[in-house]
Amino acid sequence: MLLSRLRAAVLGATGLTGQRFISFLHDHPLFKVALVTGSSQSAGRTYTEATNWFIEGTPPESVGGLVVSETRIRPLLDADVDVVFSALPSDVAGPIEHQLASHGLPVFTNAGYHRMREDVPILIPEINPGHLGLVRHQQYNGGYIVANSNCSTSGLVFGLRPLQRYGIRSVTVTTYQALSGAGRSGVASMDILGNVVPYIPNEEHKLETEPRKILGVLRDDHIEFADFRINASCVRVPVLNGHLESVVVELEERVSVETAQEEFSTFSGAPQELHLPTAPTHPIVVLTDPDRPQPRRDLTTTQQDHGMSVKIGRIREKDGLLSFFLLVHNTIRGAAGASVLNAEFAAAKGYLPVRGVN
Amino acid sequence: MLLSRLRAAVLGATGLTGQRFISFLHDHPLFKVALVTGSSQSAGRTYTEATNWFIEGTPPESVGGLVVSETRIRPLLDADVDVVFSALPSDVAGPIEHQLASHGLPVFTNAGYHRMREDVPILIPEINPGHLGLVRHQQYNGGYIVANSNCSTSGLVFGLRPLQRYGIRSVTVTTYQALSGAGRSGVASMDILGNVVPYIPNEEHKLETEPRKILGVLRDDHIEFADFRINASCVRVPVLNGHLESVVVELEERVSVETAQEEFSTFSGAPQELHLPTAPTHPIVVLTDPDRPQPRRDLTTTQQDHGMSVKIGRIREKDGLLSFFLLVHNTIRGAAGASVLNAEFAAAKGYLPVRGVN
Amino acid sequence: MLLSRLRAAVLGATGLTGQRFISFLHDHPLFKVALVTGSSQSAGRTYTEATNWFIEGTPPESVGGLVVSETRIRPLLDADVDVVFSALPSDVAGPIEHQLASHGLPVFTNAGYHRMREDVPILIPEINPGHLGLVRHQQYNGGYIVANSNCSTSGLVFGLRPLQRYGIRSVTVTTYQALSGAGRSGVASMDILGNVVPYIPNEEHKLETEPRKILGVLRDDHIEFADFRINASCVRVPVLNGHLESVVVELEERVSVETAQEEFSTFSGAPQELHLPTAPTHPIVVLTDPDRPQPRRDLTTTQQDHGMSVKIGRIREKDGLLSFFLLVHNTIRGAAGASVLNAEFAAAKGYLPVRGVN
Amino acid sequence: MLLSRLRAAVLGATGLTGQRFISFLHDHPLFKVALVTGSSQSAGRTYTEATNWFIEGTPPESVGGLVVSETRIRPLLDADVDVVFSALPSDVAGPIEHQLASHGLPVFTNAGYHRMREDVPILIPEINPGHLGLVRHQQYNGGYIVANSNCSTSGLVFGLRPLQRYGIRSVTVTTYQALSGAGRSGVASMDILGNVVPYIPNEEHKLETEPRKILGVLRDDHIEFADFRINASCVRVPVLNGHLESVVVELEERVSVETAQEEFSTFSGAPQELHLPTAPTHPIVVLTDPDRPQPRRDLTTTQQDHGMSVKIGRIREKDGLLSFFLLVHNTIRGAAGASVLNAEFAAAKGYLPVRGVN
Repeated sequence: MLLSRLRAAVLGATGLTGQRFISFLHDHPLFKVALVTGSSQSAGRTYTEATNWFIEGTPPESVGGLVVSETRIRPLLDADVDVVFSALPSDVAGPIEHQLASHGLPVFTNAGYHRMREDVPILIPEINPGHLGLVRHQQYNGGYIVANSNCSTSGLVFGLRPLQRYGIRSVTVTTYQALSGAGRSGVASMDILGNVVPYIPNEEHKLETEPRKILGVLRDDHIEFADFRINASCVRVPVLNGHLESVVVELEERVSVETAQEEFSTFSGAPQELHLPTAPTHPIVVLTDPDRPQPRRDLTTTQQDHGMSVKIGRIREKDGLLSFFLLVHNTIRGAAGASVLNAEFAAAKGYLPVRGVN
Repeated sequence: MLLSRLRAAVLGATGLTGQRFISFLHDHPLFKVALVTGSSQSAGRTYTEATNWFIEGTPPESVGGLVVSETRIRPLLDADVDVVFSALPSDVAGPIEHQLASHGLPVFTNAGYHRMREDVPILIPEINPGHLGLVRHQQYNGGYIVANSNCSTSGLVFGLRPLQRYGIRSVTVTTYQALSGAGRSGVASMDILGNVVPYIPNEEHKLETEPRKILGVLRDDHIEFADFRINASCVRVPVLNGHLESVVVELEERVSVETAQEEFSTFSGAPQELHLPTAPTHPIVVLTDPDRPQPRRDLTTTQQDHGMSVKIGRIREKDGLLSFFLLVHNTIRGAAGASVLNAEFAAAKGYLPVRGVN
Repeated sequence: MLLSRLRAAVLGATGLTGQRFISFLHDHPLFKVALVTGSSQSAGRTYTEATNWFIEGTPPESVGGLVVSETRIRPLLDADVDVVFSALPSDVAGPIEHQLASHGLPVFTNAGYHRMREDVPILIPEINPGHLGLVRHQQYNGGYIVANSNCSTSGLVFGLRPLQRYGIRSVTVTTYQALSGAGRSGVASMDILGNVVPYIPNEEHKLETEPRKILGVLRDDHIEFADFRINASCVRVPVLNGHLESVVVELEERVSVETAQEEFSTFSGAPQELHLPTAPTHPIVVLTDPDRPQPRRDLTTTQQDHGMSVKIGRIREKDGLLSFFLLVHNTIRGAAGASVLNAEFAAAKGYLPVRGVN
Repeated sequence: MLLSRLRAAVLGATGLTGQRFISFLHDHPLFKVALVTGSSQSAGRTYTEATNWFIEGTPPESVGGLVVSETRIRPLLDADVDVVFSALPSDVAGPIEHQLASHGLPVFTNAGYHRMREDVPILIPEINPGHLGLVRHQQYNGGYIVANSNCSTSGLVFGLRPLQRYGIRSVTVTTYQALSGAGRSGVASMDILGNVVPYIPNEEHKLETEPRKILGVLRDDHIEFADFRINASCVRVPVLNGHLESVVVELEERVSVETAQEEFSTFSGAPQELHLPTAPTHPIVVLTDPDRPQPRRDLTTTQQDHGMSVKIGRIREKDGLLSFFLLVHNTIRGAAGASVLNAEFAAAKGYLPVRGVN
């Protein structure tokens, strides 16, 4: 049977994260953007008209001409889609994602709404590939919901996973988070120009909780959370893209700087083995210059990287504490790119339908 | 006897910290700026001509007309000064401050050169007034050197001192440091615009060491350092003035948010008791809005504050850890204002000469 | 008769311009803030609670405790006010200002709604004091409306007025406008960080029209516009406060740099003669350093200036064209300060009631 | 004869403009980087070691391993190069470029030193291809010097050339210039954060003079300058790359917005006809959104553009004046890319040697 690309819907496609979804999906080998949704102001206009495109150049041609639908259940079901990507705000995401899954659709979501549900995995295929199996316990009629993590979490877990074998006792993380994390109009310029703001609503709670779920162990129908404390302090800084995080890890076993560097550099997982289209060659890139990583300069090491690798630098060890800085592209590895990789992984594992050419 | 104001020299008076010294001293009740020194390019020009004045308005009249001297020992001794304030870079500061003290002069310095010497106090009169006594052990002929702390240290110790009675086990501090900390041309705009840089040479070492000296106990001729570990991560951010610090303190005794707030708000010391001219009414000001303190908005609470109070906000308690953010004006409480306050305290304690009116 | 301060209402008091009104009026010798209005969200809360205060420190005590009213006609009439200051958005301002004037109240407004009406003066007392007389032609029952100019206009006219005697043929003005001109949340940080945006809706039209009215001649019941062309290009830049304008004036008579400098420096008007409380000593301050004026450094020359003087620098002359840069504080001289000065001038000219002490 | 790529030297290769040269030349079909020079600090280190690489990713492999030479005549002659590209500072550039040309080498320079010499063309092949012939009058032994224009000039002339047939009477240009125009450390962050600086040394003079040479007519051995006046005002803004310019042109013949748009969009020249490797498909791209072009968003329309096209937007016409904004990538079309295109054009016209494969 000749296979066709799966028909994908992108919910909330006109916002910053939605644009990243389009950017990853418009020429994807497995998926084809069949439907884009947006707010009632956007609905009825073409994607190009409705979108204030923030990425270099202009919206891709294959999507730019699609007419934006409102984010409602009916047009979504009518569109004969095979898979749904959601860049919706959390409160809007909850009910509609639930409905779509109930109608048998696989939903890969960036929204936080279902993330802490016992039967929903926060999937990062390099880190917890087995958690995908949790969706079998979702009470949907064939459909399911797979979440990616919060943007700052997506960086932190890459800094912790390679250290887990040395016994993590506690983690202190302090962030420098980019404006795009709050969306297109989330931070007023009068508030942040020449300033930093030591408060991001709910962010610290997510960063203290989600990593323990992601790094936990799948016990049949639920995740047993990893057993260490995380203390998070989250700050907005005047940077466009890229969350920098200062991480201090207390370990049971002393880990030298060289060992840590080795563990980070050689870390690899399922997406690399499976050569998934969106997988970076190296999930973690260690930078050795003394003043790196820097958000404006180090988000992409090469164009092949797609912003999917996490950068780590300034690794230091003292008094049994391992300290380092890590940098993650918040709207790519921390949002859209993460969900696209999740869907690729699900496809490779047989969790997505196949579609024959008519 | 009618008393006259003491004749003060300001070394390195044209730089950012030097300007703050001038700003504090030009109309001071105890001191009168008698001499300003600068680089060889500045020497021979008036202070106004030689200075790219960064503070509001223009250089004060009483100083603007002074001719800048080179920072050499001879003109300094000739000028008949009673007290020296030093805003010199550390490497230049070392030998000349030593010479001036050897010639019997009291030197209040912002430079780091002598700071960790066993017989030099890092004085913050609200915190360790007794350490001033250490100068008696300096082998100078009547002169002495009193240092203020590094700028990021000056904030941290205010966050720690009121908690010390509860038993500090360890401290993790992560900073958001302003551009002015690197001096007028220290950070190129191409490096920091829309960026943060996770490296400030030597800063982390200072921040891990100096507070333990300041919070230590004077044992006759030396300080016994406070016995807890500090882990520091220091980052430059695109902010003009004001170092923000994220602090996590592990305490022996559990301290509630309310208790911490009370301890911070009511903290007071010798400068307040003595009503020293540069002392803020409250050394620590607790801000209760959820997104404060912010460097651009909270450096001065009132004009009477002079930038000398430390702001603390977002106090949180969990798992026996007390977390909060603090903000300090790096070139005022962290530099020039600190040394001026030190000199005022020294005067009140009889460590400065008096000068009669001729 | 002992005189009491006039009871003033400030409409739209919680926004950036409203805050500047409060800042000027809270301890004013002629006016006393009796009523503050805001949006329905603000109404019912105290001014301090309702306001995200952007100026240094905290809202002044005498106003901070006032309860914010909604901006409706009834509470305004009930409050027994003598004079109204309006910081409302233009569309909201139109009808309510009209109603208040109809009820006999003098209204000093920053809103643009009535500005181009034939019987409403755009008053700048240093420049067109006689235009105040135009209010006699307004068909209100004792009340009247006096507008201040658009913020960028308020700078330009100070650059043109002293040159008008040399015959202005044409003006080309290009702006660098601050974020605060768009209000507290007007410009999203994602749009302006590391960027400039060459478009401000309606701004160019205002800047090409209003100065010709202000610099025009009062002919009984209307203003004869000044007879020269203005070409304006307006750009938003990442600056908090202060509009910088590049001005090129084609003059009938050649004017040397020295003459221009002299004309600007010595320019003075009615507010200076009358020693009005908010009048700057010199309405125009000429800066001679080659790289000034700069918005972040030159908005206030001294604290006495209150941000009410316009700074001019880099005056050049070539080919019969006089070029220079000017800087105006957009929310002070370009908004709130302007209207307060207008009211002071109106009081001095007998256009305001007097209120005896009961 | 099989042809080999020409051996190119890049002078001043480690700076921002030098890096752009490397970026254009490392995989160029006609040129091969054979030698890179730098300061005495850089000399002896590999290009990768010596360079703080500001462009995305890391220095290209084919150049990264080259050892940097000092910028002196001897190693340059020893290296058997066929063509020289110069990114040197103007004062250093003068003598060495002269020497290299005297030794028979073609020099394509971004430096200003020789730009206004009567026998040196400021070449922009889309605009004044014939000016290349001027090099025949240079008194060098086979070598010659071809300059590209100053960065702000490089944008302006594209805005003027298509209008020249309508008779340009005068031009007023006001700039918003990026930090990279001043080099890596040219602008201190303390000077420009939240600020704009209305002064760039010598820039206005260049912008008032160079375009008249470029748009002039070759008369045998010299250029007859175009006969209109340019009035320039130049300002530094906190933008990383891209000079925005507000242009007002007084024309003899009225030109409608539509006509101007048509003239700009269809403008094309020799590099397009010859399909030179670095030539953009359209030298001018007209943007029709009301708030464009913006430096951070519009420097490259597509990756194929290489930053070589000039963007024009907000075209307006009134009172016989045509106004618009243009945007040029200052270190690409305004510097390195310009010189590479000049060399490609010279090669196509037979002004460069050919090199056979040994």
